[in-house]
Amino acid sequence: MRVAIDAMGGDFGPSVVVPGAIAGAKAHDSDLILVGDEAAINAVLQGLDLTGINVKVVHASQTIEMSDHPAQAVRRKQDNSISVALRCVKDGSADAMVSAGNSGAVMAAALMVLGRIDGIDRPAITGAVPNAHGGLTTIVDLGAVTDPKPLNMVQQTMMADVYARTILGLQKPRIGLMANGEEESKGNALVQKVHPMLKELEGINFIGNVEGRDVLTGEVDVVVADGFTGNVLLKAIEGTARMLLSVIKQEITSSTTRKLAAAVLKPAFKEVQRKLDPNSIGGAPLLGVDGAVIIAHGSSNADAINNAVGVGVTAARKDMRGAIATRVASTRSAASEEAAG
Amino acid sequence: MRVAIDAMGGDFGPSVVVPGAIAGAKAHDSDLILVGDEAAINAVLQGLDLTGINVKVVHASQTIEMSDHPAQAVRRKQDNSISVALRCVKDGSADAMVSAGNSGAVMAAALMVLGRIDGIDRPAITGAVPNAHGGLTTIVDLGAVTDPKPLNMVQQTMMADVYARTILGLQKPRIGLMANGEEESKGNALVQKVHPMLKELEGINFIGNVEGRDVLTGEVDVVVADGFTGNVLLKAIEGTARMLLSVIKQEITSSTTRKLAAAVLKPAFKEVQRKLDPNSIGGAPLLGVDGAVIIAHGSSNADAINNAVGVGVTAARKDMRGAIATRVASTRSAASEEAAG
Repeated sequence: MRVAIDAMGGDFGPSVVVPGAIAGAKAHDSDLILVGDEAAINAVLQGLDLTGINVKVVHASQTIEMSDHPAQAVRRKQDNSISVALRCVKDGSADAMVSAGNSGAVMAAALMVLGRIDGIDRPAITGAVPNAHGGLTTIVDLGAVTDPKPLNMVQQTMMADVYARTILGLQKPRIGLMANGEEESKGNALVQKVHPMLKELEGINFIGNVEGRDVLTGEVDVVVADGFTGNVLLKAIEGTARMLLSVIKQEITSSTTRKLAAAVLKPAFKEVQRKLDPNSIGGAPLLGVDGAVIIAHGSSNADAINNAVGVGVTAARKDMRGAIATRVASTRSAASEEAAG
Repeated sequence: MRVAIDAMGGDFGPSVVVPGAIAGAKAHDSDLILVGDEAAINAVLQGLDLTGINVKVVHASQTIEMSDHPAQAVRRKQDNSISVALRCVKDGSADAMVSAGNSGAVMAAALMVLGRIDGIDRPAITGAVPNAHGGLTTIVDLGAVTDPKPLNMVQQTMMADVYARTILGLQKPRIGLMANGEEESKGNALVQKVHPMLKELEGINFIGNVEGRDVLTGEVDVVVADGFTGNVLLKAIEGTARMLLSVIKQEITSSTTRKLAAAVLKPAFKEVQRKLDPNSIGGAPLLGVDGAVIIAHGSSNADAINNAVGVGVTAARKDMRGAIATRVASTRSAASEEAAG
């Protein structure tokens, strides 16, 4: 296995991505291709212990910034580190690609360089949040398609189901459709069209509509939403957790007595943070493109990159791309048999 | 001032609503009309001190359940407590109406009994969440219109602006449009249409797009979203706060030492809960109907009902309905002048 990493990605660039990738290569038994500014990468590599791993540096003269317009930047900067890393997957020199960079640019570049899996009309960006049961809840889509057609959402659901089975190792992932009420009659026009389609989709464990408050209970494994709503949802969850922890911190350190008690509870809060740490997830696959592409959070630390490398290795080793292709093909042939019969 | 209360509303019915309403009438210097099952209301009233307030009980033989289909239930149960309470506003015997019942039914009944304010095509359900600055962030719409047209959202924005000024007392409420990114180019098709319309709407302090993570920072006062997204958003925030507090509670009470330290911090956590208590908000107006109608959360305790009575009194006293009518009329005449000129 060999993973290509966009070393320039994320809020901190090579200084965080390179050590994280090296740790990931060691932990997940993978070779590494570090893509980006050669000098900057080598400067970071010098201070690291590379014993036992196979690391190659591939120079890319351009970098896409977080603030760049995704599709435009990919087209204008042909030699950007994201596209160069993706070309390593395309030409077979890498089995998976990881980036913590501009996720819209990763998607645009992946569609350009790798293309789509046969039978998939639009890709999906997934993300995961830790839930109350100590597991992960996956949200799909986070913004690959902000105004999806019902069929796009059905395909995204199938892909997320394959992801939850192959990468997260869930036997029968519970799939819920995000709505403004549990009853089947609830939802906007789009959700009301998608609900019966998911109900009839064979091979998935569809538990019906779920609400915003259900995402973190641990009662649902995959939450399906249009890319606009999914994006709002994930960011609201992250923002609420951050706000609440900051209010609590302020209160429990507002006097000397409280500070002393808070010190005793430090390990407890560490444990809470560990449980809820988005870095423990690392990255989530970009679903529907013809290759294993893992998107990590822009704020990823070295642990997150390490874990994202692990997701990339697993996606490649378990051939998630192939599993999606098979799944889509079988659903299509079942549909055409039904139409013919 | 006289407030009509749906005594049968909320998860707990008269046993919580009646004491809450009595406390509210005392606190906000209002007379009270308690609407619902006369026997049940009188049974609760017997145990309460009614000194100094004017309370009337109006019997309603039917109750709408939380699980009832809103519009159908309102049509089939003509003598339901929500509709009877609204008729008190219609015939002038009450200045405002409060219900913690089925919010869809309150909306359907209000449209039927009171009708809409001239120039408003669709109403809006608002809700508020406590933010990191110790203030409130209002979200509009929570589901009155799940597939709004751009103009519906513009009208909802105007109404929410009037609400924030008259009831919340904000001078220049900062209004943000919920989107999947801050840049003006972000959003689904609907948001991309609404953004320029809000930018050109005179008399509001439009700060542009906001993301899910911005709702609780205190940097925005009114978050405008379609009713589907707003509903998902509010419930996600509530659910995340609940989940996080429960995980923390579990961790800080997992050993005797931790329990002792946690006991010292109990006042600090109480303070956090007080700051974030949705009951301190009480209720939010149903905007756009021709009368002061306040919707309280189904899980309202007596404090919440008390506060909701206060919101009703303020809405009536400050003539929020009239302020909305004036605002809409002036925007319409400005628009027709522009069209004519």
